[in-house]
Amino acid sequence: MTTDVPDTPGPSDAFHVFDTTLRDGAQREGINLTVADKLTIARHLDDFGVGFIEGGWPGANPRDTEFFQRARAELTLRHARLVAFGSTRKAGVAVEDDAQVRALLDAESPVVCLVAKAHDRHVNLALRTTLEENLAMVSDTVAHLRAHGRRVFVDCEHFFDGYAANPGYALDVVRAAHGAGAEVVVLCDTNGGMLPAQVQAVVRTVVADTGARIGIHAQDDSGCAVANTLAAVDAGATHVQCTANGYGERVGNANLFPVVAALELKYGKRVLPAGALTEMTRISHAIAEVVNLAPATHQPYVGVSAFAHKAGLHASAIKVDPDLYQHIDPELVGNSMRMLVSDMAGRASVELKGKELGYDLGDRDLVGRVVELVKERELKGFTYEAADASFELLLREAVHGGPQRFFRLESWRTITDQRADGTLDNEATVRIWAKGERILASGEGNGPVNALDRALRTGLERTFPELARIQLVDYKVRILEGRHGTQSTTRVLITSGDGTTEWSTVGVADNVIAASWQALDDAYTYGLLRAGLRPSD
Amino acid sequence: MTTDVPDTPGPSDAFHVFDTTLRDGAQREGINLTVADKLTIARHLDDFGVGFIEGGWPGANPRDTEFFQRARAELTLRHARLVAFGSTRKAGVAVEDDAQVRALLDAESPVVCLVAKAHDRHVNLALRTTLEENLAMVSDTVAHLRAHGRRVFVDCEHFFDGYAANPGYALDVVRAAHGAGAEVVVLCDTNGGMLPAQVQAVVRTVVADTGARIGIHAQDDSGCAVANTLAAVDAGATHVQCTANGYGERVGNANLFPVVAALELKYGKRVLPAGALTEMTRISHAIAEVVNLAPATHQPYVGVSAFAHKAGLHASAIKVDPDLYQHIDPELVGNSMRMLVSDMAGRASVELKGKELGYDLGDRDLVGRVVELVKERELKGFTYEAADASFELLLREAVHGGPQRFFRLESWRTITDQRADGTLDNEATVRIWAKGERILASGEGNGPVNALDRALRTGLERTFPELARIQLVDYKVRILEGRHGTQSTTRVLITSGDGTTEWSTVGVADNVIAASWQALDDAYTYGLLRAGLRPSD
Repeated sequence: MTTDVPDTPGPSDAFHVFDTTLRDGAQREGINLTVADKLTIARHLDDFGVGFIEGGWPGANPRDTEFFQRARAELTLRHARLVAFGSTRKAGVAVEDDAQVRALLDAESPVVCLVAKAHDRHVNLALRTTLEENLAMVSDTVAHLRAHGRRVFVDCEHFFDGYAANPGYALDVVRAAHGAGAEVVVLCDTNGGMLPAQVQAVVRTVVADTGARIGIHAQDDSGCAVANTLAAVDAGATHVQCTANGYGERVGNANLFPVVAALELKYGKRVLPAGALTEMTRISHAIAEVVNLAPATHQPYVGVSAFAHKAGLHASAIKVDPDLYQHIDPELVGNSMRMLVSDMAGRASVELKGKELGYDLGDRDLVGRVVELVKERELKGFTYEAADASFELLLREAVHGGPQRFFRLESWRTITDQRADGTLDNEATVRIWAKGERILASGEGNGPVNALDRALRTGLERTFPELARIQLVDYKVRILEGRHGTQSTTRVLITSGDGTTEWSTVGVADNVIAASWQALDDAYTYGLLRAGLRPSD
Repeated sequence: MTTDVPDTPGPSDAFHVFDTTLRDGAQREGINLTVADKLTIARHLDDFGVGFIEGGWPGANPRDTEFFQRARAELTLRHARLVAFGSTRKAGVAVEDDAQVRALLDAESPVVCLVAKAHDRHVNLALRTTLEENLAMVSDTVAHLRAHGRRVFVDCEHFFDGYAANPGYALDVVRAAHGAGAEVVVLCDTNGGMLPAQVQAVVRTVVADTGARIGIHAQDDSGCAVANTLAAVDAGATHVQCTANGYGERVGNANLFPVVAALELKYGKRVLPAGALTEMTRISHAIAEVVNLAPATHQPYVGVSAFAHKAGLHASAIKVDPDLYQHIDPELVGNSMRMLVSDMAGRASVELKGKELGYDLGDRDLVGRVVELVKERELKGFTYEAADASFELLLREAVHGGPQRFFRLESWRTITDQRADGTLDNEATVRIWAKGERILASGEGNGPVNALDRALRTGLERTFPELARIQLVDYKVRILEGRHGTQSTTRVLITSGDGTTEWSTVGVADNVIAASWQALDDAYTYGLLRAGLRPSD
């Protein structure tokens, strides 16, 4: 692959949307990605249609080396090109002998993005070399990678601070990269301290003085990363480096989603494949899921609150014309408008939700009873926003005026035993009633909840063979009240599936196992309803 | 009070920092403030030194009417003036007869901020009146409030969209307000769709064409509210409307903290009383506490992650000079730098962290061993970023070349039993060794982990009475790999305290109880070290 790297321009080559979630985004405090996570995120980014995906720093980090290996075998990208990130050669070392540069070639990505120092003080203090040697390191490394068929981008670290301190030297670094064959020279606001007016002035000068194709990489420490990115584009930059949901070191990086949305919707620039923008909300949330962070509810364009209206003033105007209070049609980015009722469990939302699920709640007393029930349970810590199946069961029971269950719990017990040799045993016993029969069953698992789940399935599968198709696909625990040590209330959300659809259920208790039991009970009850059974059967 | 309203300029009168957390900020989804909350927040904002605090809309909302009543009796503001928000008179009603305008006067605040329509389409569609009548509504209401001794600011709603649609009419509204005696005319980007370059151009024109003192009110729907606010200042605005932590409708408002920090630290403008800026981080978190939202960890300047460094590349430079990787000294805003230990960090961050904890890691092999150990354990799912105490134990054991423990586990067992009458029993038994003795102890609790904790304490308190002072204060569970049903890996983070300080520990296992055990083991071991005991004692 080293000689036949595809060098034809991608769909967005006139303007580069360059994503660095997998490299710079992974620097965010609390993010810790496995190789499998990285492959999944790369697929989401490719679906979204970014032009370049920076995958990591091969050679510096074993996980990133493995990512590039597995990417070759497992990733089929439709839009994006994979980019390996790395540093210019070490001072005083021939580029051919530099192990880190070798690792960049070994990654076999069509594109390499090199980081170079552009601030004289950093060259002296951090690299401990001369300004001349740093320029040679840039041009040697770029030329070497070009000679091996790579497209090369160069990130000029601390460019704006460097330009303020020593503009002549900062420009020399840009010229060295450009002269050696770098396709794009990226000006980085590494400390994130710049404001848009400064970025715009500097980019304008660099574009005019060097003739290089210029990119921008902005950090959000001043809260201006999106604006700084757009200011650079206004000044002539044609390559933007961003991360999904703005993940990144310290405060974060320029957020890919508002940058791309502004370019497409406000600049009228086509920077994504046709139809991709409407996937933006879904992809933002899917990536949050993979990195195991809750999606930011108030994120521009894609947050669940981004088009949610609460003010009475606004509500009456929105009745006249929804566009009076939204800057874009939310459907353009795959989001939707929401009207918030002052109380989350108001009548209107219960009625709407009931209708959505196919229940006729014409009876006003019934709606009132459901609202009361939801309020009461939400006070205890239940949440139905993320547990549609539990909400539907609650609704069914209110409509039918009594339990709608296939089985009934008598008692259960779990035992977890860590033996002296270090092995762990988890055992559960359940006593349940189904179709008038008392069933005793037990199960083992890798934890008490898993053991309880297996005992329950073992007990019920004889009576309900339909259960064989139902799988638990996700399990989330949240502690609702901290500051009480291990006595906090626990909320468990379980997602289950039957191969064609998925549903979520909730349980709340002092005890993680008891909360899990409630969510499991709802999960299997709902699954049997979906399989066509009715409690009277 | 209606006749002797103080009209002398406040400390920041040449430049207004106007906070609307209590009015516009309260529109954020999930915020629901009591009058007592509002009074508390007003005190925090006054401590911070904002010039104006918009308290709410008296007359439109009973809670806001009560706020202004109680504020007169209970609030003593040192820096800020209180502002009542309201609307211009109704169409076709004499201003003296308008109940809402009456309620504004009854609030007895020295300042009133009126909202006026500046977009012709909104006048027609939402107000259902003529363009001329709307101008009369603006000038009548401003003149009436001025005649009653109020300072008056006018918010021109939808100004930027209105200016784009009908610039002549939008300017007429500004002139009507200015001509009638409004001290500031505020241009509002109500839908938040503007970008900085647009804001700057429009503000510049309005300043030049009307001669009015201009303010800016920016929403964050494009992710540019901070930059839009600064762009307006660049163009001549001398009044900025913001909310603490950027709370507000939909995505939110311009965030007070990065706006003020940029003005003070990057523009060199004194907009706060001397010494106030160093209180910014504390006040941001205190207000988050009152509104009952977790402080945003990645907020510019004030987030706990705002000056946290993870990348190995950065860590090695920070060893040379901390200013190389931060845009300001965090102490200027009352925040501090933190080094995060993670597998992306190399030797440098381990060395720095070691130094922070008081360990001399001069030995290069030792640093290498610790780095390897951290990498290996992070691969399994451990994270030391949020578990300083577990990291310190790991470091101690590496320095001492062996276990640094006070007790050793032989085995444990937990039993959770839900009986037929619905009651839950949780029982744990531990077998541990301490000071050469084998100890068997059991405990009960409201969950298996709580029972295990009690059994461990019961077993150890006889030997280590110091444990009595140690409390568990927080307990967090995270499932590391979803999509596996109940077989996922579990990470537990426990925060413990001894009344003077707190520390955090981590455990990772397939099993929530086993993971909790590891975190408990570290928590008590660290607590005994903190109490002055040494493993050899």
